[in-house]
Amino acid sequence: MPASYAYLGPEGTFTEVALRTLPEAATRELVPYVSVQSALDAVRVGEAEAAFVPIENSVEGGITTTLDELVAGQPLMIYREVLLSITFALLVRPGTKLSDIKTVTAHPAAQPQVRNWLKANLPDALWESAASNADGARLVQEGRYDAAFAGEFAAARYGLEALETGIHDAENAQTRFVLVGRPARPAAPTGADKTSVVLWQRDDHPGALRDLLGEFATRGINLMLLQSRPTGAGIGNYCFCIDAEGHISDRRVAEALMGLKRICLQVRFLGSYPRADATTADVRPLLPGTSDEEFSSAADWVARCQDGRF
Amino acid sequence: MPASYAYLGPEGTFTEVALRTLPEAATRELVPYVSVQSALDAVRVGEAEAAFVPIENSVEGGITTTLDELVAGQPLMIYREVLLSITFALLVRPGTKLSDIKTVTAHPAAQPQVRNWLKANLPDALWESAASNADGARLVQEGRYDAAFAGEFAAARYGLEALETGIHDAENAQTRFVLVGRPARPAAPTGADKTSVVLWQRDDHPGALRDLLGEFATRGINLMLLQSRPTGAGIGNYCFCIDAEGHISDRRVAEALMGLKRICLQVRFLGSYPRADATTADVRPLLPGTSDEEFSSAADWVARCQDGRF
Repeated sequence: MPASYAYLGPEGTFTEVALRTLPEAATRELVPYVSVQSALDAVRVGEAEAAFVPIENSVEGGITTTLDELVAGQPLMIYREVLLSITFALLVRPGTKLSDIKTVTAHPAAQPQVRNWLKANLPDALWESAASNADGARLVQEGRYDAAFAGEFAAARYGLEALETGIHDAENAQTRFVLVGRPARPAAPTGADKTSVVLWQRDDHPGALRDLLGEFATRGINLMLLQSRPTGAGIGNYCFCIDAEGHISDRRVAEALMGLKRICLQVRFLGSYPRADATTADVRPLLPGTSDEEFSSAADWVARCQDGRF
Repeated sequence: MPASYAYLGPEGTFTEVALRTLPEAATRELVPYVSVQSALDAVRVGEAEAAFVPIENSVEGGITTTLDELVAGQPLMIYREVLLSITFALLVRPGTKLSDIKTVTAHPAAQPQVRNWLKANLPDALWESAASNADGARLVQEGRYDAAFAGEFAAARYGLEALETGIHDAENAQTRFVLVGRPARPAAPTGADKTSVVLWQRDDHPGALRDLLGEFATRGINLMLLQSRPTGAGIGNYCFCIDAEGHISDRRVAEALMGLKRICLQVRFLGSYPRADATTADVRPLLPGTSDEEFSSAADWVARCQDGRF
């Protein structure tokens, strides 16, 4: 296995900062790629051990590029997730004052998070999109724009200074990133895990989605993400990206996945991995009757009934 | 095992006629008992191998005496069921004319099935209830009443004649009888089986019954009987007698029973046995994704995911 992690570049973005929070990143070579697709392809062809990409953002929702890449093509598996709080700094060349700023830039994803700040503080500034927040900073360094919204950490790298920090329209704006590799046995459960799957319905009868959700509800499993994505087969044709609480080695999760496998046209398992947002103690209590022990003793009881011993 | 079957007597009732349709009855001594309870107790104490009692009637619904006996006390198991079409004959002493009839009798269960006929043909006759339809015929023989509603087959036994036959208010009035024994391994599935259970809810939260039914629906299992019975713990406290399509050795039924065992306060298995109302060919097609093969291959797929082989 090549000991390198591909990530959505360039260097100096929130993605790199999030990746460096993972202890295992310290022992790998971290290689920036120009797109989510190219980073994931590096894993698929064996050029990288894993890829680190954004998948969900608390302001905008699922990041469709990443979801669509995981939904299609050669199967990949999620091994880790990282939650990063996103606040922006306004980076300028040293000496620039707020009143000097006529043009600003950043990645388009930054815009909904700085929109109110811009309206209040730079109502007349012209916005142009950059390929990434780090790229925006580089363009400010080169003199193409007066200011860039980026992580404060990017200032030093591009010889800029932060005129303002902590900019975020939404309180608790967070982005979720995932470390994606080729399929292998998932790590053992930690007690606070999630399981990601993609579901394709067999047909579109009334209540079809409720039937899918029923497979989770019947086993007392809480959902953490439900994002529909068009399948490409025409208007109204969707698959569903779902994150559910629990680990595939939990009996209740395994049974729900079996149920989905039976009733769906297709199910893609995207992995079971530790939750970044919860320690064991934070996990909500299971509904009565849905612990592994209860699944196990119920199976014993049915076996006794099948045998006439009751 | 004593080679005798207890049945709800006396001789000459629909129960005896239904029992004699079972091939195995030909090789047993058939012993009438005065009540459902005494017939079932004969099984519980080992006096009889099995008991044959009515359990459901297409006009009135579940026969509560029988359900309550199966719900409580030492567990018993249903091995067979028989469906009998119920039409009544009006039995009189030879020579009696319709205009002679001032008093009629029968078991109270007969009344809803002959009510319209009585109103049309004997509007002024006085009705009194008998302990059984056969007992009513005996009372006519003894001169206590002018006529009795009973099975036509009872005429010969009591020296009576049928003044009218084929009396039934509801078309296709049927009574379902069950052969009940002590728990043992259920007979192998025939392809057209049903499974009976009694369910006690853990608590009475909104949607509690829907949750129970969801355990069947999620596995595509059709219900054939749902009858609530008070638990005796006060108003609003019910248990549910349920007949479901399928055999406990079917994976979908076993999985539903496991689910119920997990979420219910208590589950009593009452047996899996051949359906009297259907041959294999009549059984409704399974919902997609609920065949034994699909349960089996879904389990294989989850095992592969747990192992990272996909």
